[in-house]
Amino acid sequence: MAHGGDIYRNKVNIDFSVNLNPLGVQKTVSEAVLRSLDRVSVYPDVTQDEVRQAIGDTFGVDKSCVYAGSGASELLMAMVRAVNPKRALLLEPGFSGYGRSLEAAGCDIVHHELEKNNGFCVSEKDLKTIDSSIDLIFLCNPGNPAGLNISTDVLRKTMELARKNDCIVCLDESFFLMSDGALEDKSTYAGLLAQYDNLFIVNSLTKLLAMPGIRMGYVLSKPDNIMKIINQLPEWNLSIPAQAAIIEGMRLISKGDYVRETVNAIKTERTYLMRMLKDFGFEVFDSNTAFILFKGREDLYEELLKKAILIRDCSDYAGLGKGFYRIAVKSHEENEILIDALRGITYEL
Amino acid sequence: MAHGGDIYRNKVNIDFSVNLNPLGVQKTVSEAVLRSLDRVSVYPDVTQDEVRQAIGDTFGVDKSCVYAGSGASELLMAMVRAVNPKRALLLEPGFSGYGRSLEAAGCDIVHHELEKNNGFCVSEKDLKTIDSSIDLIFLCNPGNPAGLNISTDVLRKTMELARKNDCIVCLDESFFLMSDGALEDKSTYAGLLAQYDNLFIVNSLTKLLAMPGIRMGYVLSKPDNIMKIINQLPEWNLSIPAQAAIIEGMRLISKGDYVRETVNAIKTERTYLMRMLKDFGFEVFDSNTAFILFKGREDLYEELLKKAILIRDCSDYAGLGKGFYRIAVKSHEENEILIDALRGITYEL
Repeated sequence: MAHGGDIYRNKVNIDFSVNLNPLGVQKTVSEAVLRSLDRVSVYPDVTQDEVRQAIGDTFGVDKSCVYAGSGASELLMAMVRAVNPKRALLLEPGFSGYGRSLEAAGCDIVHHELEKNNGFCVSEKDLKTIDSSIDLIFLCNPGNPAGLNISTDVLRKTMELARKNDCIVCLDESFFLMSDGALEDKSTYAGLLAQYDNLFIVNSLTKLLAMPGIRMGYVLSKPDNIMKIINQLPEWNLSIPAQAAIIEGMRLISKGDYVRETVNAIKTERTYLMRMLKDFGFEVFDSNTAFILFKGREDLYEELLKKAILIRDCSDYAGLGKGFYRIAVKSHEENEILIDALRGITYEL
Repeated sequence: MAHGGDIYRNKVNIDFSVNLNPLGVQKTVSEAVLRSLDRVSVYPDVTQDEVRQAIGDTFGVDKSCVYAGSGASELLMAMVRAVNPKRALLLEPGFSGYGRSLEAAGCDIVHHELEKNNGFCVSEKDLKTIDSSIDLIFLCNPGNPAGLNISTDVLRKTMELARKNDCIVCLDESFFLMSDGALEDKSTYAGLLAQYDNLFIVNSLTKLLAMPGIRMGYVLSKPDNIMKIINQLPEWNLSIPAQAAIIEGMRLISKGDYVRETVNAIKTERTYLMRMLKDFGFEVFDSNTAFILFKGREDLYEELLKKAILIRDCSDYAGLGKGFYRIAVKSHEENEILIDALRGITYEL
């Protein structure tokens, strides 16, 4: 099981293995997607003019610094192709998609394990692994599967060290706008683009907009980096419904309330879930976003699946192992169902 | 203007630059897409089980020989990455996407110009360009922009010669099910897959289903070739609406009437358009599918655009030049509007 979310080959009533905005699909976005179906008999705009403008305006960068794609996964692959690294650094545990993109491009991978004592978050100590032999490093903020925001200080030091070593940094912000960090900082780290030519920021919008069935995401970087990425992407890579969802999504993000309400809703439910998980005696790792990593009984995945609840078995993550799980922070109703199920399993009710 | 269809930066009432099924979007397909919006808050099935089965059943191959993508362009790029050719042969004039995919992968390109006297169709004489230095050749059946079906005899000889020279053949059938060839042969050349390990068949379904806003297409090849392609594609590369459209599209194709009605409707209108174009004194090239290549006055593109009609200026195709144009075969009403406009320009009414 390389991913969360295999609802196609399991009987699943509630899927805690994928991490989507617990506020759910917003009406304005689903309506925009519905309206867009009137235009499916024309090609999408190959230049993505309107979409790039909307994303650029939202994050304060020029549209030449923006390109959209069918999910972060498409953009990660194109970014790796554009950079063409010989040797890349992966911080573990981390998203398997990074390694997959690197392997597709025949790049050597150096794995570095983050410290459990630090909640599997990047600290200054971890930066020693960046040297001139590394061409590319993936940073995930917040991390996945542990969910902690990287401190601004560590992030800046990483950028400096990477630049000194001619190393590209791919900052994955797929969960940033659903993390506590989004309330503290202005919005994202897009502001760093003005200072660093070696920075790519990737964001899958499917999590925030709770719409993974419409493939969408974007990448931000310097214009010549973006040009290289475009050359590695299929033309018309963004469907008409995806274009509509992104444009409406940017309107939501720009208004500000949506991100704040999202982060606050997640925080309330995360606090509740973490307290309950600790009560069961599980080892619970701190998180700033819409999922929680914990360690518990080795049969939890199977036992929950018997109750038609799917969670993410994290035993296949480098640096983790048997008994590690990740659960999404969902609506209070759904979270209670999970807790009830765990209670049943734990106390064998 | 690298492509047809730039309706985003021109005032266009009728777009003759893109070639879509003149029967238009079928109700069952648009309804399936509409229904699929109920499922956009879940990830698409990463294994594409149902989609691959539907395509495989339609063309008589096992689902392990099938993979779907967000348009032929995505699959062409992934195929080139999977094959990793050093040197590829392009028959000109041809679709610019082949060259784009090869350039993205850093592959050397050998260009061979097809004969105008042969209607820019591949003939046995052209096969002399296949030797052991060529790793990959693109065959487009019917050709684009000229639209003639390659004869079965030439196609088989190409396959034999390619195999002898350890050369991969990518057969682009994006317009095959809209061509006369689809009525003569069983359905496509998918049957050749049983005999040739060196064959990839790519089909963009967006033309036949008249739905380019939903990105979709498929590739057929031997299972181990398909595995290599999957490794070069982003996960969840196919959106939920695209999955729905493909499954419903396969139902239409399987019934048979749809393809026959499509080909016959195109033939009737193509015959009409060709006769009218010849009457204007244009040099008209024969076609078996939903578009027509012709040579006329050098100001036709601009003059028609003044009347809000967009056609494909083919002056940027290798082997063509100023005055070459491609027009789509559309509904009779639309075709009459084009002819009226051409009459106005030609006789300066």
